[in-house]
Amino acid sequence: MYYAGIDLGGTNIAAGIVDESGKMIDSMSVPTNAGRDFRDIVKDMAELVKKLADKTGIPISDIEAAGIGCPGSIDSERGICEYSNNLNMCHADVAGEFRKNLDIPVYIENDANAAALGEYEMNAKGSKSFVFITLGTGIGGGVIINGEIFKGFNGVGAELGHTVINVGGERCTCGRKGCWEAYASVTALIRQTKAAMEQHKDSLMHSIAEKEGKVSGLTSFLAAKQGDEAAMEVVSQYFEYIAEGVTNLVNIFQPEILAIGGSISKEGEYLLKPVKAFVEKNDFNRYMPKAKIEIAKLFGDAGIIGAAIAARNAHNGR
Amino acid sequence: MYYAGIDLGGTNIAAGIVDESGKMIDSMSVPTNAGRDFRDIVKDMAELVKKLADKTGIPISDIEAAGIGCPGSIDSERGICEYSNNLNMCHADVAGEFRKNLDIPVYIENDANAAALGEYEMNAKGSKSFVFITLGTGIGGGVIINGEIFKGFNGVGAELGHTVINVGGERCTCGRKGCWEAYASVTALIRQTKAAMEQHKDSLMHSIAEKEGKVSGLTSFLAAKQGDEAAMEVVSQYFEYIAEGVTNLVNIFQPEILAIGGSISKEGEYLLKPVKAFVEKNDFNRYMPKAKIEIAKLFGDAGIIGAAIAARNAHNGR
Repeated sequence: MYYAGIDLGGTNIAAGIVDESGKMIDSMSVPTNAGRDFRDIVKDMAELVKKLADKTGIPISDIEAAGIGCPGSIDSERGICEYSNNLNMCHADVAGEFRKNLDIPVYIENDANAAALGEYEMNAKGSKSFVFITLGTGIGGGVIINGEIFKGFNGVGAELGHTVINVGGERCTCGRKGCWEAYASVTALIRQTKAAMEQHKDSLMHSIAEKEGKVSGLTSFLAAKQGDEAAMEVVSQYFEYIAEGVTNLVNIFQPEILAIGGSISKEGEYLLKPVKAFVEKNDFNRYMPKAKIEIAKLFGDAGIIGAAIAARNAHNGR
Repeated sequence: MYYAGIDLGGTNIAAGIVDESGKMIDSMSVPTNAGRDFRDIVKDMAELVKKLADKTGIPISDIEAAGIGCPGSIDSERGICEYSNNLNMCHADVAGEFRKNLDIPVYIENDANAAALGEYEMNAKGSKSFVFITLGTGIGGGVIINGEIFKGFNGVGAELGHTVINVGGERCTCGRKGCWEAYASVTALIRQTKAAMEQHKDSLMHSIAEKEGKVSGLTSFLAAKQGDEAAMEVVSQYFEYIAEGVTNLVNIFQPEILAIGGSISKEGEYLLKPVKAFVEKNDFNRYMPKAKIEIAKLFGDAGIIGAAIAARNAHNGR
């Protein structure tokens, strides 16, 4: 049997078909066009699944259920997206609308929680507690305890990026000042890079940004790797912001595994080494086994696979 | 049937006998004399339980099990205190030593986790997720998920006070800089009070501290309630530090109930009102039911009752 997973992002709707074990058979995506009525977006989700069925030769009748990972506050039991920052979704009956277009069982999860479940299922299965963070435009995250998504009593947890690490600091998209997201997301890194460029007119970052056509999340990394001192300072400070938040999560959750995903995680060991060293030095646990800190393995597919796994689990009453 | 609960603190060893439902029958305490060999401390724990049995007329044979809430890193399965900051306990076989003195089943938990379980059992039972914090000399805390203490894979979670809210800020006892504990514990409040007194020589806080014989956690509260502006500023800033950490925990855990205990919680509504207003304004959840924030109800007894409940649950395989 097969499951469809749909990852609804601000830019693209990505969908895939996975087998019972979570292995991806095939995937496709279309632009989200976030300004649209949510019914049109949901219709495109259903169309994607139908196209994937055609493409893979897997009949719809062999797709047991579909899972949708959706940004925002999700009421999984009722299949409703109560609110989403970036999409026109307020009290949107996503599940009901999906079934009008494709009549198979459908389940909705918060996108970051779904991605955490995907990464857990494929790369950390059996761990008693697992924390997943994605360092991208914002900071998303999810916590898996005894194989289940932990989302608090109202489904809104765990917003790991919206925890203040610097009281009164940088304004966050959520309205608070000083959130981890406002220091350790790619958006924050770009702001930090621009500030350093302003101060260091002779830094390599200027020519790199010129070649790229813009200041991006890569600008400081590329310059730092060529030995540019101003860039090295940006990167080292940025890694410390990441590590402060990771250490907080380790002290709170003492997870068996904490996996770092999102675009920054492509830096691999270059990111992991200083973060691990910081946690090793600063965490509260001196005498018991330590949390393993790793780079997530599914990258872009975590959301699709996780949504499909969430559907599989819910469908089978797990 | 009855259970003994023991709360091992840096100053006192408190013990009590509770019934099956967690109701306290009677309690007693003796000084810890923290510098002693742990075997002598554990012997005093057993003596306390024997004395309580005498005093209450409940025979030892009716005490099913004893629970010990112990500060530090606890290996509950093996009954060992691996490490404690304030006591001479390193790889200390607390359970084994206790049974040499009193041969009944004995279980060990981290003291803050035990207190959280006690408060949950008596005042939040049935809530799907419950967070307990104690604002005292330090900040302790515990998280109860589906009726069970959440302590991570290694037993060291959840150290809620050792999460940085101010990167590079005040030095914490754990070695990091900027922990919540370094801003929102009573120790931190005293430091903040002293700093304000230094700046405001005409503040009422001076005469209050003189009467008390020292600057305490009450100095600023007493002066603020009499309208002293410098003190009001200290208190309002202190409440904000508390609220920043509480908001972080709400965003992470979305607990059905978050209870605030410890000596500061005696301020009741005076503390609760501004903290609730801050969380209401700043938390991430705009559209779903909200976490209830409350003052804890067991005060000093949470540790004893929680340790006894932990023993009851473990003894009955729950």
